[in-house]
Amino acid sequence: MSKPYKRILITGAAGRLGTEMRRGLVPLADRLVLADRVACKNLQPHEEELIFDLSDEAATIAATEGCDAIVHLGGSPQESPWDDILNSSIRGSYHIYEGARKHGVKRVIYSSSVHAIGYHGINDGIDCDAKPRPDSLYGVSKCFVEGLASLYWDKFGIESACLRIFSSFPEPADRRMLWSWLSFDDCIRLVTASLTAPHLGFTITAGMSDNKVKPVNMSNSGHIGYQPQDSSEQFRAKVEAATDPVDPKDPSSHRIGGWFVNLGHPDD
Amino acid sequence: MSKPYKRILITGAAGRLGTEMRRGLVPLADRLVLADRVACKNLQPHEEELIFDLSDEAATIAATEGCDAIVHLGGSPQESPWDDILNSSIRGSYHIYEGARKHGVKRVIYSSSVHAIGYHGINDGIDCDAKPRPDSLYGVSKCFVEGLASLYWDKFGIESACLRIFSSFPEPADRRMLWSWLSFDDCIRLVTASLTAPHLGFTITAGMSDNKVKPVNMSNSGHIGYQPQDSSEQFRAKVEAATDPVDPKDPSSHRIGGWFVNLGHPDD
Amino acid sequence: MSKPYKRILITGAAGRLGTEMRRGLVPLADRLVLADRVACKNLQPHEEELIFDLSDEAATIAATEGCDAIVHLGGSPQESPWDDILNSSIRGSYHIYEGARKHGVKRVIYSSSVHAIGYHGINDGIDCDAKPRPDSLYGVSKCFVEGLASLYWDKFGIESACLRIFSSFPEPADRRMLWSWLSFDDCIRLVTASLTAPHLGFTITAGMSDNKVKPVNMSNSGHIGYQPQDSSEQFRAKVEAATDPVDPKDPSSHRIGGWFVNLGHPDD
Amino acid sequence: MSKPYKRILITGAAGRLGTEMRRGLVPLADRLVLADRVACKNLQPHEEELIFDLSDEAATIAATEGCDAIVHLGGSPQESPWDDILNSSIRGSYHIYEGARKHGVKRVIYSSSVHAIGYHGINDGIDCDAKPRPDSLYGVSKCFVEGLASLYWDKFGIESACLRIFSSFPEPADRRMLWSWLSFDDCIRLVTASLTAPHLGFTITAGMSDNKVKPVNMSNSGHIGYQPQDSSEQFRAKVEAATDPVDPKDPSSHRIGGWFVNLGHPDD
Amino acid sequence: MSKPYKRILITGAAGRLGTEMRRGLVPLADRLVLADRVACKNLQPHEEELIFDLSDEAATIAATEGCDAIVHLGGSPQESPWDDILNSSIRGSYHIYEGARKHGVKRVIYSSSVHAIGYHGINDGIDCDAKPRPDSLYGVSKCFVEGLASLYWDKFGIESACLRIFSSFPEPADRRMLWSWLSFDDCIRLVTASLTAPHLGFTITAGMSDNKVKPVNMSNSGHIGYQPQDSSEQFRAKVEAATDPVDPKDPSSHRIGGWFVNLGHPDD
Amino acid sequence: MSKPYKRILITGAAGRLGTEMRRGLVPLADRLVLADRVACKNLQPHEEELIFDLSDEAATIAATEGCDAIVHLGGSPQESPWDDILNSSIRGSYHIYEGARKHGVKRVIYSSSVHAIGYHGINDGIDCDAKPRPDSLYGVSKCFVEGLASLYWDKFGIESACLRIFSSFPEPADRRMLWSWLSFDDCIRLVTASLTAPHLGFTITAGMSDNKVKPVNMSNSGHIGYQPQDSSEQFRAKVEAATDPVDPKDPSSHRIGGWFVNLGHPDD
Repeated sequence: MSKPYKRILITGAAGRLGTEMRRGLVPLADRLVLADRVACKNLQPHEEELIFDLSDEAATIAATEGCDAIVHLGGSPQESPWDDILNSSIRGSYHIYEGARKHGVKRVIYSSSVHAIGYHGINDGIDCDAKPRPDSLYGVSKCFVEGLASLYWDKFGIESACLRIFSSFPEPADRRMLWSWLSFDDCIRLVTASLTAPHLGFTITAGMSDNKVKPVNMSNSGHIGYQPQDSSEQFRAKVEAATDPVDPKDPSSHRIGGWFVNLGHPDD
Repeated sequence: MSKPYKRILITGAAGRLGTEMRRGLVPLADRLVLADRVACKNLQPHEEELIFDLSDEAATIAATEGCDAIVHLGGSPQESPWDDILNSSIRGSYHIYEGARKHGVKRVIYSSSVHAIGYHGINDGIDCDAKPRPDSLYGVSKCFVEGLASLYWDKFGIESACLRIFSSFPEPADRRMLWSWLSFDDCIRLVTASLTAPHLGFTITAGMSDNKVKPVNMSNSGHIGYQPQDSSEQFRAKVEAATDPVDPKDPSSHRIGGWFVNLGHPDD
Repeated sequence: MSKPYKRILITGAAGRLGTEMRRGLVPLADRLVLADRVACKNLQPHEEELIFDLSDEAATIAATEGCDAIVHLGGSPQESPWDDILNSSIRGSYHIYEGARKHGVKRVIYSSSVHAIGYHGINDGIDCDAKPRPDSLYGVSKCFVEGLASLYWDKFGIESACLRIFSSFPEPADRRMLWSWLSFDDCIRLVTASLTAPHLGFTITAGMSDNKVKPVNMSNSGHIGYQPQDSSEQFRAKVEAATDPVDPKDPSSHRIGGWFVNLGHPDD
Repeated sequence: MSKPYKRILITGAAGRLGTEMRRGLVPLADRLVLADRVACKNLQPHEEELIFDLSDEAATIAATEGCDAIVHLGGSPQESPWDDILNSSIRGSYHIYEGARKHGVKRVIYSSSVHAIGYHGINDGIDCDAKPRPDSLYGVSKCFVEGLASLYWDKFGIESACLRIFSSFPEPADRRMLWSWLSFDDCIRLVTASLTAPHLGFTITAGMSDNKVKPVNMSNSGHIGYQPQDSSEQFRAKVEAATDPVDPKDPSSHRIGGWFVNLGHPDD
Repeated sequence: MSKPYKRILITGAAGRLGTEMRRGLVPLADRLVLADRVACKNLQPHEEELIFDLSDEAATIAATEGCDAIVHLGGSPQESPWDDILNSSIRGSYHIYEGARKHGVKRVIYSSSVHAIGYHGINDGIDCDAKPRPDSLYGVSKCFVEGLASLYWDKFGIESACLRIFSSFPEPADRRMLWSWLSFDDCIRLVTASLTAPHLGFTITAGMSDNKVKPVNMSNSGHIGYQPQDSSEQFRAKVEAATDPVDPKDPSSHRIGGWFVNLGHPDD
Repeated sequence: MSKPYKRILITGAAGRLGTEMRRGLVPLADRLVLADRVACKNLQPHEEELIFDLSDEAATIAATEGCDAIVHLGGSPQESPWDDILNSSIRGSYHIYEGARKHGVKRVIYSSSVHAIGYHGINDGIDCDAKPRPDSLYGVSKCFVEGLASLYWDKFGIESACLRIFSSFPEPADRRMLWSWLSFDDCIRLVTASLTAPHLGFTITAGMSDNKVKPVNMSNSGHIGYQPQDSSEQFRAKVEAATDPVDPKDPSSHRIGGWFVNLGHPDD
């Protein structure tokens, strides 16, 4: 049976999640186009590599040519000085969507972030597509791209899933990750579901594993068909042994965004 | 232990779902009364057969006598000319509810349809009891009966569950059914749950199996206790091999009702 | 300045509201086509008369020809035997929508009723487009036409406003009407607003004057631009002198539909 | 690894749930302080006993000293004369919260009750933190403590989980408990989750096992991380054999609170 | 025309609002029964006086005999030591409702308070019947009575309006009152509307004049028919000249309850 | 009486709305600082002029020094090429918020736009603070600044009102403006209310006059105290005479954003 996509462009392909996607998206596309500012390791025969900066409009748009889907993980991976956010996340994402528009790409899967909604409270019972409430410039840039994705669906018919990734790491590294953790395999499941869902239109959802604590109501994105299969529970003892308990007087313990809410301004 | 019902009337008993109900409702009633326009096959000792048209008021009302529950599957099984819809679905269902009222039937389980809400979007995150948004005359007739059921509960104390059946077939036959499929066994589970739920009053819910993609939020009908146990996933490879991918430019791919939204008027 | 419509068909034109519309819609159309089972009085030069029964499919469809809007007030004006409801309200309204579809009528304004939602509680704080909860067969038929109107918008592009008329009479006749009253002038304002609103699509709203007690939240239909200017307050003393206080133990005093909830079945 | 709490005060420790908590909370605290009006049986080395009445302000406040959490199960365990409710549930709970405030207790887990919301309908699809709608003086006192807990979080920073316990018994004793049952082990899981959740602030949730029928939407309290593992299903046959079916004409069969809605006033 | 009530009991009749009600309720009842701990001034022929403490159960219940409505303003008028709150507000209100139950009083209008919801944010867009979030023991006692009123409606059929009075004073005394002010005349209008509304059941609403700033959405209580006619605007210049601007860093400036959120515990 | 502000910075002061604000904000501040890329006309003694481009970070931040509020109207005034949007609206607004943060400005009033939510339907009954659904790059930039404003409140305590201005012109120029029009005087009222509201935190609202058609529910922003006093109604006859009716088949007639939804990409 043929694969659902011919060529998928992965931005940020040399990064933490990008590396996982190279492994995980093999069943979905004949070829993977790997884009990053730096070289990827261990290039495979079904992979092509493109090295450029997302702030380079021409290069970015050119990279999208011939692709029928984009998994857009590139841009600043954390809170960063404004110029970085502006160039790689805001301008870079605009270039990606322009590429999609100009070259007829059908779907864009975007790694938005928990930090687009980081100031919502842990006990607010928010929906996965809750209103923006960013906790950082990084989070604001995620909101910007969510807005852009909405426009490109409504006006240009390009489908997008904006995946608000919580904490995707090899294993939970602190007590917050006991609920915010997204295993790499579940991250692949989430991107796979987004690429194969019967209809995305413009969809915002959240990315967490099947952890015991679930501060987000996922019922608005059942149409994606994401079913996490991992849980942080197996790491609980280890995490609790290695880390101090959360201080309930620390405001960051009340918010979805965690310690990001305690960050100062990145340019200070 | 005695069964919860003495006699259950099944309308449309010779049809696809009716045939399954004959098998599935055995544990719930001492006797099953099978009503249809045509004869049922292989009548069993605990079954009685009644052959009449639902548009026949006297016959329909007579059929309900002595029954303590009705599983009302009869009426046009798909988009049909107005006269069919009018006579078998609208008039016929009115006769059923009148029978229930006149003969003291306690519960009516009605096979409403996804087509009562077919124009809602797949990514709208709708609830199982979402407002009417029919996609066909067939769907409008389902809305009519839902209204009737509401009235007969509020005014006459007859409990109803209106089950918006999505796609109940032996197995998924197209890509849409990968999310809309309701296995026959799950259909039996849903009807069984509706017949044994502690309190129905007037309830609307949706009928799907435990498929990966779930475009409908079922949390408003937890009081029924329906727990699907089948999934379309085992049929995915077969379906995807046998059918073309959904065309995202086809409006029907965006709507819960699927290809029904592309149907013209049945009388044209 | 030209009028917004060339020809408006008014059904039920000889009835209570129809008579008011003949007066009120003059500014909106060059010609008014008056349809009813009986003759209208005092025909004016800008008026044409058509006498037929809405259950007559051919006559009804023919009546819509050449009209660019329909104000559909016809059908049973109150709880009635099923056959009347079926023929004049259900079948008749279907004929109207079929006429609109076949003859390219752009807008249908339908007099739905409070009785489509009559079992909702007076203190439930419902929205004007609340879910169906009919209190009578009459109310069920209103729900049916609301479903039909929804379909004809989604599938055929015919705009509809379904106006859930509360109590439109010359003046409030009982204590319930102190809140449910819709003056004739406000009724004309509501129909006029519906005919001239920038976009209706499929809209459900409620019809009450600017009475002190307002059990329905109208904020979902601000796009119609209806601004009532009358109030029942001037009639309060008269009504209270002429009628007994509401008995709070009477269930009908708790429900939007009032005494309709106490009606038995019309065929008994 | 050290336990999360040093000393947990359990009120009502000699009662049905208190006895279970003595067993279940061992992993969470070095010491358990058992408070009740009567002596507890089989005192263990890690346990301390305090015998007093919650209406005794000084004794109650003194009991909280040195504790870092309170599991407050004490007070009238069912509908009771007003004086009992007033003294043990209202005044007693106030004394508990004052103790928590004066002695710096961080978290209070309170056994609220289904009877705080007992008049909500079984098919209303309510959320676990639905608005108060008590069915008894007992239920009103639960609402009072929920209000108190809200205040002590907002003003004094003491976290609380108010657990609306449904029916926590060894096994389901009637047909209502087929959906309202909370196994003792699940009750321990719920209290444990509440004591270890990353952030409670002020949280209201409901306590039921993973029964088939689920009349309450739990999605607003995913941040607690409660995952029930028991189900009433294994007891269904036994319960149905031993008890009469629910009478659908009995109003109590429509309400979350069950037979409490049929209770008269406890002082009559 | 006869007045709607024969005898209305006013508790707290010697207080600020009670004095206004003596003036305002004359059109609604043949006789006003004035209850307070202290004597009222200037007793009129249509008035009767009863001097007792609400904590006196027998006296309170006796006072309700022969009354067909109660306007219950008594109890602690502000944050007070727990014993006062307990005796006059909690126990006293229970006595009132017991009196209503024992003597067949039809309606109770209760002066709840903004402080029952004082911790909600000014820009949260809350509804007038928002969930409890009290800012004081005073506020908790208001929540208690709201729960009691809910019970006495659902179980005993006694209608109640719980009026969350914001700031009812002769004129706005500080900048917060520019939005929270309820003029005495509007307070009379609100109580009058509550006493004459066609159906109350159990209703919670808020009491403010028609001030420019309206932090509460009143649409859920349109069934009461309250139409404020005063506004704080005429006092703005005076208030702003006499008072300092709000300090935006003061948390109390963010909350509906204002300076109550800054109060410590009344017993400290 | 002193004015509430000492110095208000107005960006875009030479533009259409800026010119009106120079007139309207006189009562609110001792001095107005006028910032624009071009010179303002008729400078008044209480005014200061600063000419710079918002993309000039240093100049923009410097301009905010000594101001206690900012009315930020600058940036691209309509759909524009990406580079314009990026530099003047995105980068420029970031500079403004950085200035506010560095120089302790208390409040920022931002002219967001209907085009931040332009793809919402006219009959969707949206709230004034509905989720982003931009109809243009211009709209996306408005969403970006709304996100930024949210962050600067949550993290840095700077209050913002994001005013989604609909159509602020001397008078309605087309039929859409009959509902979207915001008179200049009402625009001043809206900005004035936002500058004097008791608490803004982070607030999003919409800016329309008191037109008959109101497609947006304003109840979530009653805390601002905006009361429009103008209406498009006086211009209706003129507008209808001068313009063609809306074509209901034009998709732009269904959307809040109007003709913006029909615009192509500005760089094409």
